[in-house]
Amino acid sequence: MNDTSGRNDTSGLNGNRRLFLDTTVQHVLAAAALLVAEAAGAIDDERFDDWAQMFTDDCLYRITTRESRAKGWPIGLMHCDGAGMLRDRILSMRHANIFEAHHYRHMVSATRLAPGTKRAVDLNSGVQVHTNFEVIRIMGNGEMALFATGFFDDVVVSSDQGLQFRKRTVVLDSSRVDTLIVVPF
Amino acid sequence: MNDTSGRNDTSGLNGNRRLFLDTTVQHVLAAAALLVAEAAGAIDDERFDDWAQMFTDDCLYRITTRESRAKGWPIGLMHCDGAGMLRDRILSMRHANIFEAHHYRHMVSATRLAPGTKRAVDLNSGVQVHTNFEVIRIMGNGEMALFATGFFDDVVVSSDQGLQFRKRTVVLDSSRVDTLIVVPF
Amino acid sequence: MNDTSGRNDTSGLNGNRRLFLDTTVQHVLAAAALLVAEAAGAIDDERFDDWAQMFTDDCLYRITTRESRAKGWPIGLMHCDGAGMLRDRILSMRHANIFEAHHYRHMVSATRLAPGTKRAVDLNSGVQVHTNFEVIRIMGNGEMALFATGFFDDVVVSSDQGLQFRKRTVVLDSSRVDTLIVVPF
Repeated sequence: MNDTSGRNDTSGLNGNRRLFLDTTVQHVLAAAALLVAEAAGAIDDERFDDWAQMFTDDCLYRITTRESRAKGWPIGLMHCDGAGMLRDRILSMRHANIFEAHHYRHMVSATRLAPGTKRAVDLNSGVQVHTNFEVIRIMGNGEMALFATGFFDDVVVSSDQGLQFRKRTVVLDSSRVDTLIVVPF
Repeated sequence: MNDTSGRNDTSGLNGNRRLFLDTTVQHVLAAAALLVAEAAGAIDDERFDDWAQMFTDDCLYRITTRESRAKGWPIGLMHCDGAGMLRDRILSMRHANIFEAHHYRHMVSATRLAPGTKRAVDLNSGVQVHTNFEVIRIMGNGEMALFATGFFDDVVVSSDQGLQFRKRTVVLDSSRVDTLIVVPF
Repeated sequence: MNDTSGRNDTSGLNGNRRLFLDTTVQHVLAAAALLVAEAAGAIDDERFDDWAQMFTDDCLYRITTRESRAKGWPIGLMHCDGAGMLRDRILSMRHANIFEAHHYRHMVSATRLAPGTKRAVDLNSGVQVHTNFEVIRIMGNGEMALFATGFFDDVVVSSDQGLQFRKRTVVLDSSRVDTLIVVPF
């Protein structure tokens, strides 16, 4: 189960903290953090095509909740297998959004290595990173509200297209989510 | 219109993602991110003089809204042309703040290149970066509330005074803002 | 008073901004930022042992409020002198948490040098850094609410155990806090 949240996994942490001082690791994490920030910015700007291009053709994109993940339930909220499915999903979202008067602002916290990561920080083979996030929804009348919080569990790789997501699992903190999620994370 | 939010501009993004792996770009973005963080911290600490010193003498500082920007409306909420005007504005804010019982906390998300930026990442000539932010207001009685969200559209340059803002456009998400803004962003 | 918030201290800021362009300073701040992010992630994941291991044996951990700090009041909310006391405190928290249905999400803003820091950016002797944060509480029924905001005033050092906190002062913005704080920051 290499997809764990790392709860109670302490084996890699001292290693992690040593890695912080390694300029190669800093370089990789800085690159990953920029990709995460760019993806968040693309959604906020409603540049969905740009967002989709940040994923590899064979990407796996999922949205789940903290509770589902902790209990090992199958992924339920959203599941896209490959860039084609992701683009189809986005296309339908864009059409839906035409009628929406609200938009979103993503805040991302500092990107860190996934718990337990020891030395596998090679962008060619893929690096697993976690990033906390929150999304604020701004309604057409100017009202703001906290829409969602959670963390991105990402695997990033370098490719001919530049740095990309090979895998993104969006883990939402709250199990109370809109049944029709029309915004990607 | 080189001041665009980059909506629907996809031309530079693959380039951006390649740049993430470039240590020079990482260096420039790290420096810009630190300036943005320092500016946010100076406001939170109410060190307004420190904050003002982070702008070049010929700086252009503006506050607008997402809606105004999207519709191409002239800047309306605040406009300071040059460090002198900015300092005057701050001075009046400081006097106003004497009577205020609240303060602010700024959260900044990861700093990214402005959409469409391809290779112009030279701090001597200026680099355009975007940073999402949120501001929380804490009242004297301890109540906390989300005050504002948006993004900074900054042009940063290196100078004899260290890294500085040559231009800052604060783009607020909500058009519902206090008519008397007494806090800078 | 080397523990000041740096209010009205402008002496080091130009120096700070020059330092931003120094790759050594960027390296140190990147390492510090990763430690801060890792600590936040450990609490969110409820990996409290991992969290405790991020502190030196002789660490000083305190929670105070902005008002207390500004007025020079003795530390009141929480004070742990040494890793042993910190672990005891965590142990009691873990037991308390068994009965709790809520959890937390920490957002951290960019880590910056403490105001007035000029050239003392040597991780062997300790570097003082500030990081804004906010904590969102998610209840068992899915409700989300802003729980706390403030900043971490940290002194980080490198050691045989990797990068660690020698000192952490959590400065809360609001003086209205739960009398029984069962979550560390």
